[in-house]
Amino acid sequence: MREDVSAAFDRDPSATSKLEILLTSPGLHAVWWHRISAFFYVKLNWHLVGRLSSQWGRFWTGIEIHPGAKIGRRVFIDHGMGVVIGATAIVGDDVLMYHGVTLGGKTLERGVKRHPTIGNNVSLGAHAIILGDIVVGEGSQVGAGAIVTKNVKPGTVVVGKL
Amino acid sequence: MREDVSAAFDRDPSATSKLEILLTSPGLHAVWWHRISAFFYVKLNWHLVGRLSSQWGRFWTGIEIHPGAKIGRRVFIDHGMGVVIGATAIVGDDVLMYHGVTLGGKTLERGVKRHPTIGNNVSLGAHAIILGDIVVGEGSQVGAGAIVTKNVKPGTVVVGKL
Amino acid sequence: MREDVSAAFDRDPSATSKLEILLTSPGLHAVWWHRISAFFYVKLNWHLVGRLSSQWGRFWTGIEIHPGAKIGRRVFIDHGMGVVIGATAIVGDDVLMYHGVTLGGKTLERGVKRHPTIGNNVSLGAHAIILGDIVVGEGSQVGAGAIVTKNVKPGTVVVGKL
Repeated sequence: MREDVSAAFDRDPSATSKLEILLTSPGLHAVWWHRISAFFYVKLNWHLVGRLSSQWGRFWTGIEIHPGAKIGRRVFIDHGMGVVIGATAIVGDDVLMYHGVTLGGKTLERGVKRHPTIGNNVSLGAHAIILGDIVVGEGSQVGAGAIVTKNVKPGTVVVGKL
Repeated sequence: MREDVSAAFDRDPSATSKLEILLTSPGLHAVWWHRISAFFYVKLNWHLVGRLSSQWGRFWTGIEIHPGAKIGRRVFIDHGMGVVIGATAIVGDDVLMYHGVTLGGKTLERGVKRHPTIGNNVSLGAHAIILGDIVVGEGSQVGAGAIVTKNVKPGTVVVGKL
Repeated sequence: MREDVSAAFDRDPSATSKLEILLTSPGLHAVWWHRISAFFYVKLNWHLVGRLSSQWGRFWTGIEIHPGAKIGRRVFIDHGMGVVIGATAIVGDDVLMYHGVTLGGKTLERGVKRHPTIGNNVSLGAHAIILGDIVVGEGSQVGAGAIVTKNVKPGTVVVGKL
């Protein structure tokens, strides 16, 4: 948890102290909440409890992370309102994302990986929409409002529609 | 209400039971809440009570449906955070929409139909923005992030800007 | 406060009374809340209290205004869910903005003006994203979903990407 706070502080230039981050960052709270929800959903296989916990987190933070999603270390969601992360999404370490980001699906089929895999050190701008079982390669930067439905090679800058 | 839950379950591939849908789907709760708000606003003509009820629903679900809007049967709003549906919007039966969808206006004129009419079986992707008194024809699919300000013929797939 | 209510009433064609606006407009409440948060943050230099107050306002209204931001008179935020206004943003008088608008930064540098300056009488459509220390000139209209990263001359209509 200490490293989460440090990661957030480093990437939020308007923060004036780590205590401020700890108390006022909905993105930090959402990721911590997710770890509890995922414990119920994935470890204990208590699906209903995991989902209830996840929705309760959404109510408090405005950020919806399905308890089945895998979230790496030091992931920081800034502002966060409207973020939706789907059940089979995988988010790598040190990912930075902003409010309104969607990691969504393109099919209504059950039991398949339908959501994106986001590599380490990727940044996803405000309202970026990433759809389908694609990979956004390590260190890529996806611009605000971009819509991505194809694989992105590591280290790529993406703007507009891909 | 039973058909609402079934419709939601069929179109949410990550759901593991109907009880889960019933308890954790903000989109379902928002539509039910809307029926109460619309009863006050339209049937009883108690505008203030209808609007207060509607805003209370927004607070709990993140979905804002003006109590004057007409919402069809088996409409399912998935995730739902940030959805805004205007006062003179009409949404047909079996419509599926995602979070961040706007059914908005283009004019500040009072007393006219300012918002879209969405046909039956239409799907509206995440963050799609539909503006003005236009018709999105039956069975059309509007992609995530699309901006639509013109009529859409039935059965059309819309992406980008129209 | 009276002029705020009047300004909101004039620009919300679905409102049926000023009492309705006073009780049900999250945008109005967010601006008032901001004045309290800014008092703590800017006047008293109590950063933590200002930020806590600001995040509490976000929880109730869905609108996040950093307490360091400068907001003019008769600013009206309609619907408002998902609005994010950064710490060094300046918003002029009589600005009208819709839900999902971002006044954000493009750099993680500390201690510099990183957010936009919005002139008087500007309107910002739903989900418009304005990034960086740029100026959107007086009376300009930024369309729904537009992405703006360059200065906008007064009186300009902006759609798409700039």
